Amino acid sequence: MATAPSVSYSMTVRLEVPAGGTAVSQLTTAVESNGGSVIGLDVTASGHEKLRIDVTIGATSTAHAQEIVEELRNIEGVALGKVSDRTFLMHLGGKIEMSSKHPIRNRDDLSMIYTPGVARVCTAIAENPEDARRLTIKRNSVAVVTDGSAVLGLGNIGPKAALPVMEGKAALFKRFADIDAWPLCLDTQDTDAIVEIVKAIAPGFAGINLEDISAPRCFEIEARLREALDIPVFHDDQHGTAIVVLAALTNALRVVEKQIGEVRVVMSGAGAAGTAILKLLLAAGVKHAVVADIHGVVHAGREDLVGADPGSPLRWIADNTNPEGVTGTLREAVCGADVFIGVSAPDVLGADDVAAMAKGAIVFALANPDPEVDPAVARQTASVVATGRSDFPNQINNVLVFPGVFRGLLDAQSRTVGEEMMLAAARALADVVAEDELNANYIIPSVFNDKVGPAVAEAVAQAAKAVSSSVTGATSA
Amino acid sequence: MATAPSVSYSMTVRLEVPAGGTAVSQLTTAVESNGGSVIGLDVTASGHEKLRIDVTIGATSTAHAQEIVEELRNIEGVALGKVSDRTFLMHLGGKIEMSSKHPIRNRDDLSMIYTPGVARVCTAIAENPEDARRLTIKRNSVAVVTDGSAVLGLGNIGPKAALPVMEGKAALFKRFADIDAWPLCLDTQDTDAIVEIVKAIAPGFAGINLEDISAPRCFEIEARLREALDIPVFHDDQHGTAIVVLAALTNALRVVEKQIGEVRVVMSGAGAAGTAILKLLLAAGVKHAVVADIHGVVHAGREDLVGADPGSPLRWIADNTNPEGVTGTLREAVCGADVFIGVSAPDVLGADDVAAMAKGAIVFALANPDPEVDPAVARQTASVVATGRSDFPNQINNVLVFPGVFRGLLDAQSRTVGEEMMLAAARALADVVAEDELNANYIIPSVFNDKVGPAVAEAVAQAAKAVSSSVTGATSA
Repeated sequence: MATAPSVSYSMTVRLEVPAGGTAVSQLTTAVESNGGSVIGLDVTASGHEKLRIDVTIGATSTAHAQEIVEELRNIEGVALGKVSDRTFLMHLGGKIEMSSKHPIRNRDDLSMIYTPGVARVCTAIAENPEDARRLTIKRNSVAVVTDGSAVLGLGNIGPKAALPVMEGKAALFKRFADIDAWPLCLDTQDTDAIVEIVKAIAPGFAGINLEDISAPRCFEIEARLREALDIPVFHDDQHGTAIVVLAALTNALRVVEKQIGEVRVVMSGAGAAGTAILKLLLAAGVKHAVVADIHGVVHAGREDLVGADPGSPLRWIADNTNPEGVTGTLREAVCGADVFIGVSAPDVLGADDVAAMAKGAIVFALANPDPEVDPAVARQTASVVATGRSDFPNQINNVLVFPGVFRGLLDAQSRTVGEEMMLAAARALADVVAEDELNANYIIPSVFNDKVGPAVAEAVAQAAKAVSSSVTGATSA
Repeated sequence: MATAPSVSYSMTVRLEVPAGGTAVSQLTTAVESNGGSVIGLDVTASGHEKLRIDVTIGATSTAHAQEIVEELRNIEGVALGKVSDRTFLMHLGGKIEMSSKHPIRNRDDLSMIYTPGVARVCTAIAENPEDARRLTIKRNSVAVVTDGSAVLGLGNIGPKAALPVMEGKAALFKRFADIDAWPLCLDTQDTDAIVEIVKAIAPGFAGINLEDISAPRCFEIEARLREALDIPVFHDDQHGTAIVVLAALTNALRVVEKQIGEVRVVMSGAGAAGTAILKLLLAAGVKHAVVADIHGVVHAGREDLVGADPGSPLRWIADNTNPEGVTGTLREAVCGADVFIGVSAPDVLGADDVAAMAKGAIVFALANPDPEVDPAVARQTASVVATGRSDFPNQINNVLVFPGVFRGLLDAQSRTVGEEMMLAAARALADVVAEDELNANYIIPSVFNDKVGPAVAEAVAQAAKAVSSSVTGATSA
């Protein structure tokens, strides 16, 4: 599958070229004939003899960008200056900052923001701790917590190397939901320690977003924190993915005119995301689900599951899926299936496997950056295809979900985040695509569709308030 | 000691008054004759019959503000509307926020700030962890950490109630040193737990500011964190106070023309701040120091110190001060002393005690809000008087110190903060007061003097670089 040049591998190259002649057109030709794209070309200084030009180039990889730069260097009369990587430039000094909401211009400002005035606010909160949600940043703050153990597709790269992702996440929280998030990258991968740390830092936050923590530790960490804390705890890699997959599936089923309770769903991948997707699909009404991992289809009689700990995630899958008792390989299971959802590894399926699915097949190949099956190939026989990539239609992207979910939780001052809120979020996200917009190449809106965040937030807030009032009702009953 | 009306106890009162007649002048008279001040008066709506007026009133306390509001209500023809507390209004929703440094306008921005572009930055840091100081917020971030055990003069009010102070601190970090600080209010007061938590969150920060943690736990927490971490750990209540006291003392000694190595210093208070001040004064050359606590002068033969743990803070004081073996009460010790420094409790000294000090006496009465001795009384016989209050000359305020200290540490990418850096900070702060500005009522600059931050930062950065290069030299030798 060919990759298009991307701005995420873009460089700005400063060049001096002769003022007359064809040097400038040679530059753009050299970039394009080597598979790059010219994103921008600015003349930053001009004289009788020479031009100084900043050319911004899109490439497909770092190596590719370097090849193009070498080609530019070889053009007669061209002198190569500074080469700047635009992505790295954006990261210099970090991507987020803290700011004060009020100016501190004089002693009066100081005496209200800090001592002595602040003491009265502290006293008010000490007398009524719930006032912290009114008078402090707790109202609108989320901690983005990772241990750096499963960062993107990069694996266990540790807390410092995870920081750019967490900063990016915080920036997205602000951009799409006006939430103040701060990254906490933990220098421990011990489950007990992480639980204790997150419990301890919770007073200053209204929610915890767990991020890029490897399975199976992420399950236990999340479960223990939910039990312990009075603020919602949300592992985005699990639940954000599950919500956006359910929304996309809802609309894909509309396109092919099938019912969620009747389709046969085959999943590849039983990690954090796969398990969360499965649970949410079951809650949404899926009745026929089969999950395969690297050892094939999960079923109660599988050798490694006989006698497995009843609390283990794989055992849970075996007990709650595959009512028909399917065995064998993923490829065998996919034959005749209505829906394939992959959150596993590249190229586990081929053209023949997709062709062998039922009529009106739906294929979500979400492994990143290389999907379970080439989406262009899958689309030859499947009716609806989605990936995690931005260069194909129907991108399944968590950015559609987590900002709105937390906005809704914070607006409702929710103490929990449960399945009913996630189902509501998925429904709201699916409904952003209007009946007359819906088609096989548009089952999910763009992250820049400004209806998405408010729709998801509103649905989650309503669901959270319903839970909260039913809890209050139960207590007072 | 009379207290002036303060903006930190100010209310904005909405009133409707008759358009004609003297009602408006009656309003201001009512405020002022009841000891308040009129900070502002805005007509927000006007008609033939009625005016709507917002009056902002300064009072000396919450009760006083309420009394004044009652007086306004009693004026003939005046209808009282909403009463807003300005300090509380400033705290609604918190005082700080997170912001993104770059706009996220389109998919290109997204692909550099987040996936897929961010993966290359993560990989670079995984390969060279030191790059985190270049490519992430670690470069400019400080964690403001408290357990809420000793907040201002309010005591052990817990983490949520401490949050407004920590937010204020973060706002001051930004205002005076362009540092991105985020509050972490911990839901534990266990020494071991706090040490483990701060160690774990350290990867994302370039410095740790401990705040309002009670003694003696604060000593152990700071010492263990300094040992464990490769970023500076600074307990502002100790060292910030010590630095500003040393700077003020340096200039006060210039005013009275005495030498630091020759003066007799008597301190009241052996808590966190007192101990830190003492240590820094000794490092700066004080030779004759006597410390008193609630049980009187500390000396090796005092009943509660015979057989005390040699590692205890009080034992350390006994072993390192009082070479003349003074015994008895604080009042006895102060007799004939050149310098009194109080970080203890209100009214431990009277006019006679200050009068009994040596000629050219220096009195720093820093207990807040009520000093060890009324500064107006002390000033009758002492040559230089300073307090922690903003309504007397010579305010000893940590805001003069901690922003510049951290700015210097971050600029130098310092891994530690040591005595030599603190001494440099104090010297630089003292030197901001020029020779021709120096007098008994101006020994320390205002927090709004914009020379302060840069001067302190520069001095600390130079001292930090000197330490770092001497360490490198020692290692390579």
